[in-house]
Amino acid sequence: MKSQVVTFLIKCPDQKGLVAKITSFFYEKGFNILSCQQYVNSVENMYFMRIRLNAEGTAISKSALEKSFLALANPLQFTWSVHYGDKKQNVAIMVSHTSHNLYDLLERYKEGRLNCEVKMVISNHDKLRHIAEMFAVPFYHLPVSKNTKKEQEEQVKKLLEVNDIDLVVMARYMQILSSDFINHFKDKIINIHHSFLPAFQGANPYKRAYERGVKLIGATAHYATEDLDEGPIIEQDVKPVTHESTTQTLKRIGADIEKLVLARAVKCHLNHQIIVSGNRAVVFPEAGE
Amino acid sequence: MKSQVVTFLIKCPDQKGLVAKITSFFYEKGFNILSCQQYVNSVENMYFMRIRLNAEGTAISKSALEKSFLALANPLQFTWSVHYGDKKQNVAIMVSHTSHNLYDLLERYKEGRLNCEVKMVISNHDKLRHIAEMFAVPFYHLPVSKNTKKEQEEQVKKLLEVNDIDLVVMARYMQILSSDFINHFKDKIINIHHSFLPAFQGANPYKRAYERGVKLIGATAHYATEDLDEGPIIEQDVKPVTHESTTQTLKRIGADIEKLVLARAVKCHLNHQIIVSGNRAVVFPEAGE
Amino acid sequence: MKSQVVTFLIKCPDQKGLVAKITSFFYEKGFNILSCQQYVNSVENMYFMRIRLNAEGTAISKSALEKSFLALANPLQFTWSVHYGDKKQNVAIMVSHTSHNLYDLLERYKEGRLNCEVKMVISNHDKLRHIAEMFAVPFYHLPVSKNTKKEQEEQVKKLLEVNDIDLVVMARYMQILSSDFINHFKDKIINIHHSFLPAFQGANPYKRAYERGVKLIGATAHYATEDLDEGPIIEQDVKPVTHESTTQTLKRIGADIEKLVLARAVKCHLNHQIIVSGNRAVVFPEAGE
Amino acid sequence: MKSQVVTFLIKCPDQKGLVAKITSFFYEKGFNILSCQQYVNSVENMYFMRIRLNAEGTAISKSALEKSFLALANPLQFTWSVHYGDKKQNVAIMVSHTSHNLYDLLERYKEGRLNCEVKMVISNHDKLRHIAEMFAVPFYHLPVSKNTKKEQEEQVKKLLEVNDIDLVVMARYMQILSSDFINHFKDKIINIHHSFLPAFQGANPYKRAYERGVKLIGATAHYATEDLDEGPIIEQDVKPVTHESTTQTLKRIGADIEKLVLARAVKCHLNHQIIVSGNRAVVFPEAGE
Repeated sequence: MKSQVVTFLIKCPDQKGLVAKITSFFYEKGFNILSCQQYVNSVENMYFMRIRLNAEGTAISKSALEKSFLALANPLQFTWSVHYGDKKQNVAIMVSHTSHNLYDLLERYKEGRLNCEVKMVISNHDKLRHIAEMFAVPFYHLPVSKNTKKEQEEQVKKLLEVNDIDLVVMARYMQILSSDFINHFKDKIINIHHSFLPAFQGANPYKRAYERGVKLIGATAHYATEDLDEGPIIEQDVKPVTHESTTQTLKRIGADIEKLVLARAVKCHLNHQIIVSGNRAVVFPEAGE
Repeated sequence: MKSQVVTFLIKCPDQKGLVAKITSFFYEKGFNILSCQQYVNSVENMYFMRIRLNAEGTAISKSALEKSFLALANPLQFTWSVHYGDKKQNVAIMVSHTSHNLYDLLERYKEGRLNCEVKMVISNHDKLRHIAEMFAVPFYHLPVSKNTKKEQEEQVKKLLEVNDIDLVVMARYMQILSSDFINHFKDKIINIHHSFLPAFQGANPYKRAYERGVKLIGATAHYATEDLDEGPIIEQDVKPVTHESTTQTLKRIGADIEKLVLARAVKCHLNHQIIVSGNRAVVFPEAGE
Repeated sequence: MKSQVVTFLIKCPDQKGLVAKITSFFYEKGFNILSCQQYVNSVENMYFMRIRLNAEGTAISKSALEKSFLALANPLQFTWSVHYGDKKQNVAIMVSHTSHNLYDLLERYKEGRLNCEVKMVISNHDKLRHIAEMFAVPFYHLPVSKNTKKEQEEQVKKLLEVNDIDLVVMARYMQILSSDFINHFKDKIINIHHSFLPAFQGANPYKRAYERGVKLIGATAHYATEDLDEGPIIEQDVKPVTHESTTQTLKRIGADIEKLVLARAVKCHLNHQIIVSGNRAVVFPEAGE
Repeated sequence: MKSQVVTFLIKCPDQKGLVAKITSFFYEKGFNILSCQQYVNSVENMYFMRIRLNAEGTAISKSALEKSFLALANPLQFTWSVHYGDKKQNVAIMVSHTSHNLYDLLERYKEGRLNCEVKMVISNHDKLRHIAEMFAVPFYHLPVSKNTKKEQEEQVKKLLEVNDIDLVVMARYMQILSSDFINHFKDKIINIHHSFLPAFQGANPYKRAYERGVKLIGATAHYATEDLDEGPIIEQDVKPVTHESTTQTLKRIGADIEKLVLARAVKCHLNHQIIVSGNRAVVFPEAGE
């Protein structure tokens, strides 16, 4: 294998000797272990590992590695995935009206701070086309109405499949996607919700935050699931506000929280730091990366 | 009037000239204005002022001041209160099992960092008696069961009234008070809830936070109202947590958030920084105090 | 005067009756006081006010207002300025190599979230030209070497004067400006420093932060003064880091802090929320704006 | 070995196969690995591991374990320590005038939230004796003057040795300890400094923070070294402040930061989460503990 970082994500029932067995496997194959992060959920008796390897100096091919790993993985009941550093992931960004998340993501992409290819921006409105064009990213305007909802989703789905999209980022796409669509891209759609969930699920969180008189507002990036705003949480942050803050002020302060929270979540996903388990996301921190 | 700080809290319909009229009133009476903080809620067209005066050099008596102020206040439809620095407020703390808030409040009180008299600790359990005794504060054990709920509340009420209590601090008192009780002490009961409201209202917020997989936990100090955990929010704070945090870890991290949030809220109240308006609390920051 | 917001910033020796006198002045001229914020520095016996007026319904002209205000201001020794909402300020952004602050400021400008005209980007390198061009803002490449430092500064100065620039934003401009230059634009140059000052003044703060093993890093926006990184601080923020963070990681985390800190500082300045006093900046919060 | 948690802290030159070798060692000895945390410093090519084992089901004795481990450790050049859960560490707290850290530590200790024995409080003043007595902890008043500095330090040292103290917590002890003393207890003295180091090293940090006009203040817990306030940083935190904050306000806000920062640092040390490396502290997060 050519010199690159290889990342394995592993989930399995906990048992004695796991870390010894897994690390010995890779050591014997000639890999240098760059980092090895574990998490044991003792409530559910589940074990999680993210292990990053340097392939330099190994002669094994990808397919031989994977085949060989299966012999370890199957008896121990691993759910696992492997990610090779020589393949960039393809990303689609979906938006509606608000521009701050889109700008922020495209800026990071263009300046090489997001390790991916942003293949397209999809929107149900034409409003943000100029931003995609500034960054030379294809923009698809796919309007949607009550009657065309199903057809539009099919168009989106087709676009995503044709372009071999690995990750869909809903950067304030204000349409509720069907369960079919969401399950088709399970754990591959990240949504930003403009509140610290589970507070203010659903519509108009800033207005409701104002009315409730909260002293802090926040944002939450999570994987989209069938249940609106209830998917596994990847990242959250908040900022203090005061009684002086109007709904408009909250929106403005919130925009800055949203854009950093979404960018951090996308980075964690692209960097293979996340293992979803039920409704919780195990998010390993960066390990000197 | 003897040298002291006098604080007026004022709420009224907004209109031209309010600040000029109010500040001129106090200037003409010979007060030095230490600070004058305002807030205009333009949605509701309401005006709020907190004004702190130095009484040094004024000859007017308290009663004359208040009578004179009425002539200004009535035509402008003020809801107002006045607080004199020479009177310490009496505080009762109510607790059940958890000790961290109680320690923290009593430490601040004992070391002169809370401007009040803590007259008593009331609990439905005997567990925390030793802490009250360490700080030489009277402890009342008033157990409660389903059948004695009403009687116990009457006992509490009597204790509060006999001791002329100005503020009740529910420092993790795990009983739901009756509407009667709460309305009797309207805007005089501060409760700490162990979540960032409106998330996780009600019981077991840390357990539910674990299950939801949130990436931050928090605490909220608010005035108690008839609707559980829905009263005006005074203060909130959060800390980041990770997938590693068990329910026990969340409790421990949360305890530190709770104690600071409650202490800050109590300080704001004792310092006359708060005006309640509907379900929102206008909390003025300290003004060089 | 046409309907608009008028903001006065006032600094003077503290004395009895100031707020009454000032607010009465504006009330009598027919202004509605939108907000009136004060700060008394009792160590230095100085008084500071930011007062925002709605000119709707006043007949007075700007020049008459200012002339009339002088009669109040002079005997009370005001240092003051007035700012009319109908005039947009002109801004120049200076950069060198790093792009994140520039993108962020231009995005806010373009989307109408910064109340100003960004007239130009000036850089001693040509590297970020493409960003200015994306946003259709003129870009001036004015290279500088040891020998041409003085001439280059003259070129910059001329550009700023010809374009009637009100505010210079040093968004990671990595040249030390001469005292002459800085004093010429006193309190009109905002610099972002990539550490929480006064820690890590000067060069390579992230490298030094790594070496010192700090557990949080930050950024500071301040007015540039003759003494490098010692000017009045407008805004600071930090994020936690760990031993895992390399210098590169710190730079990346820091970039996100820098861009928000600088944007907030610029907003405060453009919004006339700041009064400089010696080496400290009085930064009034937004008042329901 | 009886059922307990055993923690190894290991530091060594980085090389291939370390995690496999170490984890296999413990697996073969019959230990269950509760958590295994690593850190690779690629700048210095150093490897760090914190590994927690459950001794349940192992027959090996402590001495046999350690002897056996040496055979692994020596060829790989480990610097290492082992900590058994059945031994509580002995702690001495040193204070001078300020009480908030002392209260907070003793409260946690008394309520079972610090896994240690607080054997004594030592002070150069008699002022805080009442607090130690409230918590029934021996209090030693060892006054110090210029001329008696050396003798007093000897007295302190003797007290610490006689009582077999494992950790000294300087909870605002306002005397500079000699190099001799500090080196005698290397990596065993935790100090709280009332600023976010390296800002405001040395005396009067709050006063200097006020004068510098910073917009946030902080606290730092670090191991004491010969160079004042320059030892390895364990924990830091900050809170925002404003121009309204006087030196007194900063002290009050700072007190709350100090007490949490110090308590968290002490907990990390007692919990064997820290490996010191040069002037940096590797602080592993809790692993589901």
